[in-house]
Amino acid sequence: MIIIMKNDATKEQLKVVIDRVKSEGLNVHLSEGNNRTIIGLVGDTSKVRNVGFNSYDGVDRTLSVSSAYKLTSREFHPDDTVVDVDGLKIGDGSMVMMAGPCSIEGLDQIMECARIAKKGGATVLRGGAFKPRTSPYAFQGLEEEGLKYIRQAADAYDMKVITEVMDEANLDLVCQYADILQIGARNMQNFKLLQAVGKTGKPVALKRGISGTIDEWLNAAEYIANEGNFNIIFVERGIRTYETATRNTFDISAIPVIQKLSHFPIIADPSHGVGVWDYVPSMALASVAAGADGMIVEIHPDPANAWSDGQQSLNEKTYLNMMEQVHVVEEAMKKVNGIKLI
Amino acid sequence: MIIIMKNDATKEQLKVVIDRVKSEGLNVHLSEGNNRTIIGLVGDTSKVRNVGFNSYDGVDRTLSVSSAYKLTSREFHPDDTVVDVDGLKIGDGSMVMMAGPCSIEGLDQIMECARIAKKGGATVLRGGAFKPRTSPYAFQGLEEEGLKYIRQAADAYDMKVITEVMDEANLDLVCQYADILQIGARNMQNFKLLQAVGKTGKPVALKRGISGTIDEWLNAAEYIANEGNFNIIFVERGIRTYETATRNTFDISAIPVIQKLSHFPIIADPSHGVGVWDYVPSMALASVAAGADGMIVEIHPDPANAWSDGQQSLNEKTYLNMMEQVHVVEEAMKKVNGIKLI
Amino acid sequence: MIIIMKNDATKEQLKVVIDRVKSEGLNVHLSEGNNRTIIGLVGDTSKVRNVGFNSYDGVDRTLSVSSAYKLTSREFHPDDTVVDVDGLKIGDGSMVMMAGPCSIEGLDQIMECARIAKKGGATVLRGGAFKPRTSPYAFQGLEEEGLKYIRQAADAYDMKVITEVMDEANLDLVCQYADILQIGARNMQNFKLLQAVGKTGKPVALKRGISGTIDEWLNAAEYIANEGNFNIIFVERGIRTYETATRNTFDISAIPVIQKLSHFPIIADPSHGVGVWDYVPSMALASVAAGADGMIVEIHPDPANAWSDGQQSLNEKTYLNMMEQVHVVEEAMKKVNGIKLI
Amino acid sequence: MIIIMKNDATKEQLKVVIDRVKSEGLNVHLSEGNNRTIIGLVGDTSKVRNVGFNSYDGVDRTLSVSSAYKLTSREFHPDDTVVDVDGLKIGDGSMVMMAGPCSIEGLDQIMECARIAKKGGATVLRGGAFKPRTSPYAFQGLEEEGLKYIRQAADAYDMKVITEVMDEANLDLVCQYADILQIGARNMQNFKLLQAVGKTGKPVALKRGISGTIDEWLNAAEYIANEGNFNIIFVERGIRTYETATRNTFDISAIPVIQKLSHFPIIADPSHGVGVWDYVPSMALASVAAGADGMIVEIHPDPANAWSDGQQSLNEKTYLNMMEQVHVVEEAMKKVNGIKLI
Repeated sequence: MIIIMKNDATKEQLKVVIDRVKSEGLNVHLSEGNNRTIIGLVGDTSKVRNVGFNSYDGVDRTLSVSSAYKLTSREFHPDDTVVDVDGLKIGDGSMVMMAGPCSIEGLDQIMECARIAKKGGATVLRGGAFKPRTSPYAFQGLEEEGLKYIRQAADAYDMKVITEVMDEANLDLVCQYADILQIGARNMQNFKLLQAVGKTGKPVALKRGISGTIDEWLNAAEYIANEGNFNIIFVERGIRTYETATRNTFDISAIPVIQKLSHFPIIADPSHGVGVWDYVPSMALASVAAGADGMIVEIHPDPANAWSDGQQSLNEKTYLNMMEQVHVVEEAMKKVNGIKLI
Repeated sequence: MIIIMKNDATKEQLKVVIDRVKSEGLNVHLSEGNNRTIIGLVGDTSKVRNVGFNSYDGVDRTLSVSSAYKLTSREFHPDDTVVDVDGLKIGDGSMVMMAGPCSIEGLDQIMECARIAKKGGATVLRGGAFKPRTSPYAFQGLEEEGLKYIRQAADAYDMKVITEVMDEANLDLVCQYADILQIGARNMQNFKLLQAVGKTGKPVALKRGISGTIDEWLNAAEYIANEGNFNIIFVERGIRTYETATRNTFDISAIPVIQKLSHFPIIADPSHGVGVWDYVPSMALASVAAGADGMIVEIHPDPANAWSDGQQSLNEKTYLNMMEQVHVVEEAMKKVNGIKLI
Repeated sequence: MIIIMKNDATKEQLKVVIDRVKSEGLNVHLSEGNNRTIIGLVGDTSKVRNVGFNSYDGVDRTLSVSSAYKLTSREFHPDDTVVDVDGLKIGDGSMVMMAGPCSIEGLDQIMECARIAKKGGATVLRGGAFKPRTSPYAFQGLEEEGLKYIRQAADAYDMKVITEVMDEANLDLVCQYADILQIGARNMQNFKLLQAVGKTGKPVALKRGISGTIDEWLNAAEYIANEGNFNIIFVERGIRTYETATRNTFDISAIPVIQKLSHFPIIADPSHGVGVWDYVPSMALASVAAGADGMIVEIHPDPANAWSDGQQSLNEKTYLNMMEQVHVVEEAMKKVNGIKLI
Repeated sequence: MIIIMKNDATKEQLKVVIDRVKSEGLNVHLSEGNNRTIIGLVGDTSKVRNVGFNSYDGVDRTLSVSSAYKLTSREFHPDDTVVDVDGLKIGDGSMVMMAGPCSIEGLDQIMECARIAKKGGATVLRGGAFKPRTSPYAFQGLEEEGLKYIRQAADAYDMKVITEVMDEANLDLVCQYADILQIGARNMQNFKLLQAVGKTGKPVALKRGISGTIDEWLNAAEYIANEGNFNIIFVERGIRTYETATRNTFDISAIPVIQKLSHFPIIADPSHGVGVWDYVPSMALASVAAGADGMIVEIHPDPANAWSDGQQSLNEKTYLNMMEQVHVVEEAMKKVNGIKLI
């Protein structure tokens, strides 16, 4: 942390700030510039993280240098973390494919989706039993009935299950059926829920908030890791911007950024990212080329009649065609990763 | 709802869409343009809200005409709703002032804040016992102990209590001490929590999400109203944008926009809005002039040593000075509201 | 400027960076922390503003401490600048009102607008002769003919003229007719144009860019001031965000922020700010209460038939009613400004 | 265009709107819903594009259905446009590589950059002679001297030249040296400049505005096309958002979106897109996989000492390594494009 004094700060004002810092057991280094003094704090600056230095007379502003998250940080854990989902590895260099409908609508529908998903190479089946809906009048999900269906379909096709858990009240229930717990974008900073899923020890797919910063996202993962649960998978699903040609703005740079700052794997969600089905394939290929550890896409046997997100769901033909293309790029990436920077 | 067909859509494609619409019990009106056909849907369009029409062959796109929220809407409830907080009215034309520290740090501190708040004209005391912190290592709040303190301080100064409830697990506890339940920005779309606070029937201060749209915010209120709870107060606290000179961008237009679209009162939170203490007073005056039903500000006896949000908290002198100015503008607004549009 | 070394930076890497800094004639102060070294630069850091220190081995990142703009900064010019527009003062504590149509459509129209504007208390007449249109097929303005009309109308009502100049080619022409040159939002960073208007010495109303940061805006003013022209008026006209309920998000905090960082006056443009006529009056009142040095609004005798921006233009009745309310708040603000912070 | 009447609109109010529409020579189709009437306009709606229907009594709002741009639209020009740059084709299915320094600093530097660029497979040399700088005190470019150097270097390595033109005053000069005129992000809506470069008939690389919408971008291209110049190349360079981990948010979805809506080619600028050199390679690969028609990257022999944008420039080693990887993905994409959707 750095405290920048104003141009006209007095010696007394400087002393007050320095004394406050030292009272917390930290040390200071002063940079006496031509115009102003800059104070560098030495020690455990988390102790003064919340001190309102900006309110001190003579202080212009403070700048934070270190991040709050530790367990999540690659600085403290240089090697990649491989998340083990009951035998299925995520983050080990292979690309994990997850596919399924936005909502579980019935046993037949989820069975058909599982068939299609598997056919395209997916090893994890997605489907929502508890749906976060902007309006209270929209379909909220089949709940436990839906969980039973998706478990049944996944087992029939030897796949894992990823599904969203929206609150602590249903956490135990969801844990009975899911292999991976999904935390939705609107819950990225539902801190109590993060702690709760952290305590389960189960793999958690943490979606980026609708306008979540990379820093908030990493700190959200820290809530989970702080409970001893290192089975965390980041999911980039697009961020909110002014642009309306796409549902969100798919921030593909999150892939290299997260991979640099953290050791947890990151997968892409191009379906929510762009929100328009015919843009999804190119975003999927881009994600593979950007180095994503995997992908999660929405499919439906009959998108026109899907109960939710029909406009971004892929039908069987489009999905299988896309997966064929994805595999080509996957192969190319193996070769790419072998081209070392000398 | 309107479905816009592509320029080259065929008669058969048009028929498929029309048949689907009619199968839901709706009617259609066709606008046969020079280039394209536009289909207007007549009837309860919520039935087809989630049909993926965009996936139909020949369809260019759909446009939504009506909103999902009803109970919240002024169209269905033309008169202002006055929220009654155990005798204190919000939304009746008077300006309600709420003030207090970001966090409750101890009995002495909250007592002192209550004294200052009251002196400036506040009738509601704010203070956080459960704090939403980006990092798990930051101070999380005094919890029940904090609730006891703020209740004690409020009672000592004949004030009401507003405090944040972060999860259902602590809802009953918070209800024992608070007069107004605050739903924080990060929980604007925590739908389960909204339903839970809705069920209590207690007044709810609903903060706008960090990047919440007006539409999402109104629909979030709908979750609460749908439980039969019409004691809703909107709180504009700034939105996330690219600008870094302020902590958020205080969207003062939310005041007239919400007042046009909904019948629930709206108050301003200039403290979080700008995030820098010396900008708070002018934003407070602006809010009064914009017609806000009230305001909520952060104060602290010693902002430099506040445990959180010190950089945006007002000390006693600044707060009292601001309140004097606020009262002047309040008086002016009474005169302004008398200037009728003939 | 501060350079932050990585945790694992070596002594040699540190030396390379220090040597580079010193080679530019600057000095360094080192903060040797527990984990990392932070280098504070002392001297004229503009010399190394563009050195890619981030590319140096061992460097984590750099932080900029001082701003580039100087002449515009209040640090270097503590007193308010009062812009003199041929006798009319802007920034002297009074509120200047500017009103007129979006586009000049004809002599009768601009004459009628001048009559209405004057009646409401405006002293400056606005109107566009050169219109920036998103589409090349939209009405581009009456050009010189329009300039003649607005000059004639302003003279008839003893008002000043403010109108947009879009390029250097037409600058001399516009200068013949205008008292204040307006630089539109899309041209905030048209650096050549800024230099050109700077050279004229005429008053310049500099609109904030569509997504202009405060810092870019201040630096844009610096381009003008650097030509010796201190007759600069900032115009806050709303910024681009994700929200669609309003045309832009009116950033009212720009008023206190600019007044803190710069000595040039700032006026509000609530018309473009919200883009919906019935929200304009409350935004106007809010601007007065926020301390704006003035305001510029769009009016039209018949908004329904305006050639541009009809949806945000005020008709005579609404405008006069609003101005009555504005004057009440203006009076209140005189009293407010007298309430000094002891 | 569609006009939506309010719930309580009267027959008379409806008639006024209909009469106004018909007075412009258009026809109407009415959708009489349960609650409200919707008016569909039939005919050349550009005539009423600027009528302020929202100001009419009884009108709730209007919705625009068709876009303003025509020549740029794929609807009117279904086949891809191949831009011919003096023999070099852009948009013909091959990937064009453009590389070079941010600024031309001297003959030796640009010569060295050309050598490196060519070695990596680039066929177009970039370099700025006129630099758009946020601050007036920053290096503004070598101007004509710089143009001479880049031409010399490009000729030495049999490459084309792309360089930014910032104003009409220097347009003729830049035309003498450049093969492709670049319009910078800050000038995307400098309409006069767009018309001027349009008139030259020379290839134009049109960068997306800092917060440019897809629609504004397409309309900006329309200004150029409207002058008879169809040699337009879109350049996605990232958009401004709240995220600060990257300099901009690289909107990779612009590639498929533009390719759907327009027939002009689009290339990616990952350098400005992310603004941090070590994220550039993955963004480059992602762009290839997304289907970009080409790429433009910043390189420098010694980024640490670059006069501008050093933090995002690639040194020779990183650039050559990246290009090797790019070629692998390019090859894979040929195979991908052969996988047809049956």
